[in-house]
Formats: sequence, structure tokens, C-alpha cells
Amino acid sequence: MVIDVKPRLAALRDSLAAKNLDGLLVASTDNRRYLSGFTARDELLTETCGWLLITRREAFLITDFRYQEWARQEAPHCEVKVYKDSLGAALAELLRAGGLRRLGFESAYLSVRNYQRLTEIAADARLEMEWLPQEGLVEELREVKSSEEVTAIRKALRLTEKVFTEVAAWLAPGLSERRAAWEIERRLREEGSEGVAFPPIVAAGPNSARPHHHPGEAVIRPGEPIIIDMGARLEGYCADMTRTLILGEPTPRFREIYTLVRQAQIRAEEGIKAGLNSVDADALAREVIVRAGHGEAFGHSLGHGVGLAVHEAPSLSPHKDRASTLKAGSIATVEPGVYLPGWGGVRLEDMVLIHPDGAEVLTELGFYEW
Amino acid sequence: MVIDVKPRLAALRDSLAAKNLDGLLVASTDNRRYLSGFTARDELLTETCGWLLITRREAFLITDFRYQEWARQEAPHCEVKVYKDSLGAALAELLRAGGLRRLGFESAYLSVRNYQRLTEIAADARLEMEWLPQEGLVEELREVKSSEEVTAIRKALRLTEKVFTEVAAWLAPGLSERRAAWEIERRLREEGSEGVAFPPIVAAGPNSARPHHHPGEAVIRPGEPIIIDMGARLEGYCADMTRTLILGEPTPRFREIYTLVRQAQIRAEEGIKAGLNSVDADALAREVIVRAGHGEAFGHSLGHGVGLAVHEAPSLSPHKDRASTLKAGSIATVEPGVYLPGWGGVRLEDMVLIHPDGAEVLTELGFYEW
Repeated sequence: MVIDVKPRLAALRDSLAAKNLDGLLVASTDNRRYLSGFTARDELLTETCGWLLITRREAFLITDFRYQEWARQEAPHCEVKVYKDSLGAALAELLRAGGLRRLGFESAYLSVRNYQRLTEIAADARLEMEWLPQEGLVEELREVKSSEEVTAIRKALRLTEKVFTEVAAWLAPGLSERRAAWEIERRLREEGSEGVAFPPIVAAGPNSARPHHHPGEAVIRPGEPIIIDMGARLEGYCADMTRTLILGEPTPRFREIYTLVRQAQIRAEEGIKAGLNSVDADALAREVIVRAGHGEAFGHSLGHGVGLAVHEAPSLSPHKDRASTLKAGSIATVEPGVYLPGWGGVRLEDMVLIHPDGAEVLTELGFYEW
Repeated sequence: MVIDVKPRLAALRDSLAAKNLDGLLVASTDNRRYLSGFTARDELLTETCGWLLITRREAFLITDFRYQEWARQEAPHCEVKVYKDSLGAALAELLRAGGLRRLGFESAYLSVRNYQRLTEIAADARLEMEWLPQEGLVEELREVKSSEEVTAIRKALRLTEKVFTEVAAWLAPGLSERRAAWEIERRLREEGSEGVAFPPIVAAGPNSARPHHHPGEAVIRPGEPIIIDMGARLEGYCADMTRTLILGEPTPRFREIYTLVRQAQIRAEEGIKAGLNSVDADALAREVIVRAGHGEAFGHSLGHGVGLAVHEAPSLSPHKDRASTLKAGSIATVEPGVYLPGWGGVRLEDMVLIHPDGAEVLTELGFYEW
């Protein structure tokens, strides 16, 4: 995939103009990759592979000597600046040279300590400028996917489905959740995934009542629900898919809950389209589950956007303070679940591409008919 | 390993008393685990598995419903508080109930956005309190290891050495760096490592001149240096080890550089002890390399502390602004390197346990005699 960052930089500059900003300091790994093409990933919160400074006319990638060759190779539309001792001092020089007065920064990705250091360095250098906290400037651009991005996500989903199918055929009673999760990760990576989009979840029996279960020594048994939540990553883009299965004969309760969750999912997939409010999207599935008397057992949001990050905009949440209008071209998960403590749970997760007139289900893997 | 967090909490409370703080808000994953035993790891910078509030008398772990069972199981010395909508609101209630006036927070781990939100919530709740940025309060405690921690790190090193030995025997010309790095990760995990301490580095030929190379499609060839930097993680604790090898007959230049780097490492391992300044520790190895005319080619620090994080205190750096006095009971890497662009590099990394009278080399794997 050849990603052209130029239209992305142009769109960001439109946002800068609209906010009367002279530039944006980008500290987020995913936003850095999106705007520059530089694929390095920050492994620790306190260490960075580099920051971007995007001004109205220029784009700088400020990094250290360890990453300079890599950055120059992957980010040809950025001027790569290598700092020796202090990223802050290198930034201050660029701010002075550019005469920047109103600088936006990503407040969700800059620590209080780094903010304090940067503002002190700028003050010591007698830069007359304002530091203006920003949220979501680049994330908003990332929400609507280009056709190349959709293609990358489709490929990541195909690989995810292939490995799920292999592992579902291999699963057997007596295997631990941890062993099964490793089998998923090993196959994903050996079949081409760049790492994993997130550590695979395998939750067996009563553990399947925990939406974010960490796979452990619990053993897979026949007749108990098994939730598998997994995703490949290709060309930087994530897939995210959940299926619930059972070995042996499904119990009546499993059939009932599974059918309910699937009905809720179908209802949402049929109703989601651009222009819908995200809270109303969530409600499509939630109403089905509430009507069946299991509203309390669906304790999380219906879905989330997926792209370079496995969780990104939009949020398909029941919370009104996270509400947004769904946009054509965005990709989100549709993942209702019902969790019954002591027994277990069922979650079914597809990915959809949102169009003006509906939602296209990107996930091609079918569902069990119990 | 049974880790007793009570002495850790007591030591932190001594630090709080010395700084006249009523409590500390802990946002770092590793510090949370260190003080509570809760092993969940934050995967994304913008999402948390929970924060700790440690006061002079109490310890709270504030998390959401997804983690409540897990947290209660692993953190018996913390009162687990489950928030529904807002971590900040739950925190404000605890601050009010405890009557906290002077609250420390980890400025390196709290984003500007979260800081703004928390202080607004506190102001809206009319809490009369000060937010006091802190650096390194818990990291200082983590610097000196208990015997249980040393044991865990020794075990992680044994596994690292075992897998290195297996992979070195398996390595063959024509394999890509990426394939070799995956073989290391696969074996580490199948032999018991909890994930990896960091993504393994395999840098072949000219790529070995890049200290932080990302393994790619470059192919291993006879007669070229190959740097392998890898580490297992056991019971949360990291190992970190680097060896440089060559397939086929080593060239005279390889012998020369390898011998030089090994001499620098031996000099440092013989000279490091508690009470030494970290800049002087770095200089022990650096002087050997400088005298041989390769000072410019050793572009990074001599080493770093290792524990729950693969990079932690102390820093064995030539930079005076990071200087500290080495403490008995701390564990650090000793990893000089010489990197010659176009040709390649050699790095050799051991881990040492610092004693009052010297450094005990924890790494048992020997060195090649070329």
C-alpha cells in the first residue's frame, strides 16, 4: 500500500486555519504515523520515537540519532530534525525560526511533565507564544477512511477470519485459555500479521462473563461458552472480530442468549448509516437486549472505530457526552454482548463500513447455527 | 513468587511524610503493579486499567467494572473502588472523604487532558486542595530490588540465555532478520515467557550499525556481524541481554571491534559498585573505547536499570543531568557498543546486581572467542 500523506497534511492545515493555529505539535504514535508515514511505535509512555511539528507550510519530524535513517526513509514529506540532548530545545529552535505564536498540542498525549518542560524551555528562550491544548484534530481526519485504508482493513479481517477458522477447528476440551490465545497469536503472526492488533482474548466458561478477560489457566470444557476476540494488523491497520462458540451440544440457555445477541447485532447492522447519532446506533442493539430483560447484562458500548488504532473514533456508546454523528467512510465494530456472572457470556463482533444509505458488513465469516 | 506489597506501601508513606503529601495518585502501570500486585497492563495511552490513590493510611485501586474481579483477586491490600461513568468523580469522592489537602500526582504519567479534567472536577466539587507534580517517588523505591525480585530476574535471564543458545544454533545464512526475531519471540513464549520484555532486535550486516534497528527483510549472511538483543519476562520482571555473533569465519575487523567492546564491558563490570556516580560508571567503559579511537561510534549510554520495566532507574549515562549515585541492590545493564556505518556494529550486554563492594554479573552466558 502506498499511502500519500499530502492530502492528510492539507486537511490538517485546513483545521489549523479554522482554529487560527500556527501549528500543531503531534505526540501520538498513531497520529505521527498517519501524518508522516513513519512506522516506528512508541513502546513506553516515557520514551518517544519522535514528535511532529506541522505548521501551515512545513512539516518537521523531530527524532534522535537512533531513528534518523528509518525516519528519513519512511517520511519523505517531513523534514527530519535530529536532536542530541533535548527534544524541547530542538523544538524551541523550530518555533523561533517559524515565528509561531499560537501552537496547538495534543493534550491527551503530552504528559504534564513534558508540558512543563516544554513551556519552561520556550519561556527561557523568550518565545512569545501560546500553548493551546487540542483534542481530536488528527483523530477526526482518521475517522473517515480512504479506499487504501479500507483495503488494508479488509485484508486484516480476511487473515483474522482465516486464523479464527483454523483455531476453532483445532480447539479441544482440556486446552487452557492461555494455550488457545497463544495459538491464535502464533498463527496470526506466522501467516503475516504485524504483531497483533491487541492481545487475543479467550474466555472460557464462567470467565466469558468478563468482557476484558485475561486468558489464564482455566480449561476449555464442552457445553460452556467460549468467547474469542482477536485481530490481525496489516500495513498498520487493525482488524477486530469476536465470535462465541461452544464445544459439544449447546445448552438451551446458550442457544437463547446467542440468538438474542445475534438479533441485536443484525438490528444494528441493518440500521446503522451515515447521519445517525452514535447514541441512537447503540440503542438499536441495546433495545433488543433490554426488551428481552437482559439490559443490565450488556455493560459496554455497542462498538468503536478501528483503524491504525484498535480503538478510535467514532464511539458507538450509550453515553450522551460521547455522542457524534456517524460519518460516511468510517469503520466501526458492532459488538453487542450479554454477560451472566457465574454462567458466562456471548459477544458477537463484526466490523462495518458506514455508507450514506447503510452499513456494509466487512466481516465475511458466518455465524454458528446452534 | 509471593510479593508482599506492605513494605512497599510503608516505604512510599515515608516518602509522602518527607514531602508533606497527604497522598499520591499513581497513574503508571508499573508503579500500580509494584504497589498493589494488580498485574493488568495498560495497552493504550488513553485507556487505563485503573489508578491507585495511596494516602497516609489507606490504599485505593479505582477501576471499572471490566477489571473489578481481577483487581480484587490480585490486590488484597487495596480497597477496590469501581467507577461507573467517571474515574475523576470517583477520585473526587475519595479525596473529600479522606480530607486530602496536598495530593501528589505522577506528572510523567498523567496527560495534560486528564490533569485538566481532574482539577476541574475537584474545583466543581469545591475541594480545597493542591495538586503537586511528583517525579520518581515510586521509581526510587523500585530501583533497589528485594531478593524475590532478584530471583525473578535471574529466572528471566536463564530463559533468555537458553533461547538465545537455541536460536544461535539454528541461525543460518539466508534467513531474514524478521524471521529470526520471530523465532526468538516464539521460543521465549512457548518456553514460558509472559510476552517479551521488548520486541527482540536482530540486526544483520550493515543494519547492526543501528542500535535500535527494527528487524526487516534483510538477510543474514556469513562474515557479517549479527546483533541479537532480547529478553524474557517472568512474574512481571524483565531480562535484557545482547550478544553479537558472526556466521562463518570472523573478519579481522570483527575480531578487533568485538575484543574492544568486550574489554570495555569487562572494565565496567569490574569497576561498578554502590556509591559510584553513574556518570563515572559510564566512563569506565567509554574511556576504553575512546582510547581506541572509537568514542564517536559509542553513541548511547552504558546501561539502564531493569525490573518491572525494561528501562528504569538508574541511568548509566554520560549526561550529567541524569547522574545519580549507584545503590546497593539495584540491577542494571552493562552494554557498550561500537557502531560503524556501512560496516555494522558490535554490542555486548550483561545484567549486573550492584553490591557495596562490586558488581555481580547476573548473565551467565559466556562470550564467543573469535
